[in-house]
Amino acid sequence: VTDVAPGDHVLPVFTGECKECPHCKSAESNMCDLLRINTDRGVMIGDGKSRFSINGKPIYHFVGTSTFSEYTVMHVGCVAKINPQAPLDKVCVLSCGISTGLGASINVAKPPKGSTVAIFGLGAVGLAAAEGARIAGALRSIGCDLNPSRFEESRKFGCTEFVNPKDHKKPVQEVLAEMTNGGVDRSVECTGNINAMVQAFECVHDGWGVAVLVGVPHKDAEFKTHPMNFLNERTLKGTFFGNFKPRTDLPNVVELYMKKELEVEKFITHSVPFAEINKAFDLMAKGEGIR
Amino acid sequence: VTDVAPGDHVLPVFTGECKECPHCKSAESNMCDLLRINTDRGVMIGDGKSRFSINGKPIYHFVGTSTFSEYTVMHVGCVAKINPQAPLDKVCVLSCGISTGLGASINVAKPPKGSTVAIFGLGAVGLAAAEGARIAGALRSIGCDLNPSRFEESRKFGCTEFVNPKDHKKPVQEVLAEMTNGGVDRSVECTGNINAMVQAFECVHDGWGVAVLVGVPHKDAEFKTHPMNFLNERTLKGTFFGNFKPRTDLPNVVELYMKKELEVEKFITHSVPFAEINKAFDLMAKGEGIR
Repeated sequence: VTDVAPGDHVLPVFTGECKECPHCKSAESNMCDLLRINTDRGVMIGDGKSRFSINGKPIYHFVGTSTFSEYTVMHVGCVAKINPQAPLDKVCVLSCGISTGLGASINVAKPPKGSTVAIFGLGAVGLAAAEGARIAGALRSIGCDLNPSRFEESRKFGCTEFVNPKDHKKPVQEVLAEMTNGGVDRSVECTGNINAMVQAFECVHDGWGVAVLVGVPHKDAEFKTHPMNFLNERTLKGTFFGNFKPRTDLPNVVELYMKKELEVEKFITHSVPFAEINKAFDLMAKGEGIR
Repeated sequence: VTDVAPGDHVLPVFTGECKECPHCKSAESNMCDLLRINTDRGVMIGDGKSRFSINGKPIYHFVGTSTFSEYTVMHVGCVAKINPQAPLDKVCVLSCGISTGLGASINVAKPPKGSTVAIFGLGAVGLAAAEGARIAGALRSIGCDLNPSRFEESRKFGCTEFVNPKDHKKPVQEVLAEMTNGGVDRSVECTGNINAMVQAFECVHDGWGVAVLVGVPHKDAEFKTHPMNFLNERTLKGTFFGNFKPRTDLPNVVELYMKKELEVEKFITHSVPFAEINKAFDLMAKGEGIR
């Protein structure tokens, strides 16, 4: 390893960047052929072995990072070297969902200044997408969630209006079209629910609307829509980790925080000791904690 | 009318450009709110009356242009003023399918130089899409059609390879992925068949692939795919008239022909007198004629 040295400050990332494959060399993709997310591998890519064990029995690695541990061993391609001045207890949250939502807006949806954006799902990823829309200059940001308790919190991230699909008899696409004179300019889907994906696509304006899918769907999910919705000049695309290349781009996301353009603190609702990690999961599952 | 004067050379276009509505003012759309294609109207938009009659009974207008006639009356927003030097018997074909296919490649798919493009359907629109891919600098252009008699002709338009889905047991998406190390960079669907639309989307490479839908689908068609195909960073979009704004852009398409960058002659396979117009339709229906 020559890219990092002992004492460097780094962020571990679940998806890597080898810098050699066609995806890494493409300006348009971050889905590294070698180090793309792999939830099944469980071992180091070089020798196929684990670096963890208990009583001589191997414990397998987790999503390439194994960060539910005090110390870990990772492929250098999954390690982003960052500004050593950055507070690690804050910027650690940039390794996953927050960069994913942020990048989905900034890198992929690219809302023009003054535009209207709909965000489906106001968890950490959706709130980061709202934050990204705010940074990109969107004027209206409409949060959509089935849980109205998310609405107040989302104001801090730039959401200006809210729609709860449960409050309406008509499809939420139609509700949004009425609110926006024909549809939103951009939408970002952060739930993984297939109905929300279809709604997020069908709610964008004809002629120029762009919908971005972020949420991970059920393996049997099927996306269905009438093809005329595409022919009327709508665009649908998906993103993985907000199209950020981890080693190249993540240090710059940390700099966004250091320059106070990205407010990371508001995502951190609870701090829980490592020994009580399951308490943190409970808070997240209940929708009380963001990060 | 102040934009055109008697003696000007113009092309009639089935979709218009009022230059005032949000679509006309958007750099991203050509779907004019006022003059968008309307196959039902049948009358002039100003007074709701027809300008054609026989024995005192009105004959209704056809798609805003009524060009199956020697003289016609049109809204000025559907009239593109062109270079008077351009031969009208050639550039007349630029009013519809050929610009549609050309623009689908050049304006929407935008294949990078050296890239690989798949074209579904090798009729006039698909051949124009191939021509557009060639002009944009694509290196490989793979024509897909169920009729192998189209393949030889399509070479003139830059198709370098061919796939007939009928020749393969596996889905054509998989055939194309094997030919191209994981998928084509861009695809353009020009059949209107819903299966071809799904194939055209699923055959693009993950990470950066873009599929463009051009063909007009059956009203009951449903586009279905697994949402992971989007999440893996593929883009699907549709276009109408190749995203060309008729009054603004069509004169420049004519100039492309005048500069010999666009070869219009090879699209014109037959010349038939107006009195024998149905013979021309027969030739097109049989796949013998392009334009």
